[in-house]
Amino acid sequence: MTIHGYAAAEAGAPLAPFEYEPAPLAAHEVEIAISHCGICHSDLHLIDNDWGNTVFPLVPGHEIVGEIVARGAAVGEARIGSRVGVGWQRGSCGHCDDCVEGEEPFCPENEATCLGHFGGFADRIRLSSRFCFALPESMDSAAAAPLLCGGATVYTPLSVYGVRPDHRVGVVGVGGLGHLALQFARAWGCEVTAFSHTADKRDEAVELGARHFVATGEAGAVAAAAGSLDFLLSTACADLDWAAYLNLLRPRGILCIVGVPPSDLTLPAFPLIVGRRAVGGSVIAGRRRMRDMLRFAARHGVGARVEESSLSAVNGALTRVRSGRARYRIVLTP
Amino acid sequence: MTIHGYAAAEAGAPLAPFEYEPAPLAAHEVEIAISHCGICHSDLHLIDNDWGNTVFPLVPGHEIVGEIVARGAAVGEARIGSRVGVGWQRGSCGHCDDCVEGEEPFCPENEATCLGHFGGFADRIRLSSRFCFALPESMDSAAAAPLLCGGATVYTPLSVYGVRPDHRVGVVGVGGLGHLALQFARAWGCEVTAFSHTADKRDEAVELGARHFVATGEAGAVAAAAGSLDFLLSTACADLDWAAYLNLLRPRGILCIVGVPPSDLTLPAFPLIVGRRAVGGSVIAGRRRMRDMLRFAARHGVGARVEESSLSAVNGALTRVRSGRARYRIVLTP
Repeated sequence: MTIHGYAAAEAGAPLAPFEYEPAPLAAHEVEIAISHCGICHSDLHLIDNDWGNTVFPLVPGHEIVGEIVARGAAVGEARIGSRVGVGWQRGSCGHCDDCVEGEEPFCPENEATCLGHFGGFADRIRLSSRFCFALPESMDSAAAAPLLCGGATVYTPLSVYGVRPDHRVGVVGVGGLGHLALQFARAWGCEVTAFSHTADKRDEAVELGARHFVATGEAGAVAAAAGSLDFLLSTACADLDWAAYLNLLRPRGILCIVGVPPSDLTLPAFPLIVGRRAVGGSVIAGRRRMRDMLRFAARHGVGARVEESSLSAVNGALTRVRSGRARYRIVLTP
Repeated sequence: MTIHGYAAAEAGAPLAPFEYEPAPLAAHEVEIAISHCGICHSDLHLIDNDWGNTVFPLVPGHEIVGEIVARGAAVGEARIGSRVGVGWQRGSCGHCDDCVEGEEPFCPENEATCLGHFGGFADRIRLSSRFCFALPESMDSAAAAPLLCGGATVYTPLSVYGVRPDHRVGVVGVGGLGHLALQFARAWGCEVTAFSHTADKRDEAVELGARHFVATGEAGAVAAAAGSLDFLLSTACADLDWAAYLNLLRPRGILCIVGVPPSDLTLPAFPLIVGRRAVGGSVIAGRRRMRDMLRFAARHGVGARVEESSLSAVNGALTRVRSGRARYRIVLTP
């Protein structure tokens, strides 16, 4: 059995057709026939080897939706023909404190779907059934694919940082992550404010869930919103004026970053201490929270707005994502 | 009626005897005959006008213990002859969202005991009964005085940041705040590690509650404790190597600062995001938490280790605090 995908041969290289013979299906593994795979910004970082840990040749792709077409003898719940999703993580030890608590992303032996393994820009993939998640029937496969990484990334902070439906929540950045965060925060019951550089996305942000909109590039706009938020989620991969964004929080508010800024954060101590504010981060979701996220998204109709592209046009799609033109996520179809 | 205290006439000046006639006792106020008043590092900052908001002449002092000797007509619970404590805060609006939630420190109209009012380095004080806290009978007055500000400062983080008895807690700095934090963290049920620059305070730290001790000035000592803590409380008024201290936290750990570092904090983004860590601050305690703290301290025998000094020797005592020689808090007796 040969798997057909697209791979980058070295850092920054365009993707080219790539074939590989997978290892025999292990007892705990399933084989998935991929129908959809989202393009996440992390895929670009992997292609460019921005984090220095990419293994080439790289088959990117970790927002996978497909159908189980084969299963190992030890696989429990997953059934042939089931529609499942796979996200950033494909493995963990299963024994450590974090694993047994359902916080597998923090397992010291956590394995990423496309780091040292061939990922979802392909027609098939084999991996442990533990990291396959059944998709609720009502979900559209293309809209669901970006939930597996992007959705989990923005849902987890709402869950773990104690965000309540009566909180005022800000979302910085209206892109692949941000457009999902706006939907989740509204569905969570919150009063939502979107922060975007210009006013271009105002109407769409409102449609997605924002009640208020701040064009951060307009002079004084951020300062005018001072003290208006209980929780602020930054999806921007940029060095923000952290003091100014901290100032958006009322006392006891939390700023959570899920986008990776290029530089260290510089934070004034007084607003943290005197206002008992906190700055935290968050990353993907453990297995239990992944299930919660999918159920919650299905119940509230949360899904990505996507452009579909055939897998063979992957390089054009990547260029579109790089330039920030995708509205809001591109999903590849093999 | 004349109140006799000690005041600084201008920034950095030595304290000198000072008398004032208090305003008539208002309906909601009590008059307290002060028996003890702790010296907090904030008093030094106020004397030096480090925060630019000191009102001179300044009578410092906001860790007050004394007896109610007069009460206004509208005062409810507080009784003549009751022993009470007063901390940093002496007033709030009573109506805002934070006040009605028992989080008075965040009231926009919060008033400090010795900012624009004459504080506890005196024989008496008049203030609202709302910010007087009955002291449990078993408490020693001298050991209790520093709880009113220092104790509240280190107790609150344990309470608000979700620290559990099965957590591993670190305390940076074994001084006025730190020696209380070690006691509270042990009483909270935690496995406690003390961090101090040299090994000088090892034995005392262990006696106070530390199970482990790290001399941070020894090469490699901080790095060797990497990933060992769920919660780290920094009582140091210093610019720490934030990345190294963040590295002490296991995934999902929290670093809370209550000491004010001179500069902004510089934090690497990756440990926050990938480990879902957070950095927060904390300050004093609201009225409800102040009561909880006092009850908890009494039940577990938590109290400050103090040197007593007569109020008339206040300048010598301040010098001793400035030089870091006090073990661990100085309490003035009028």
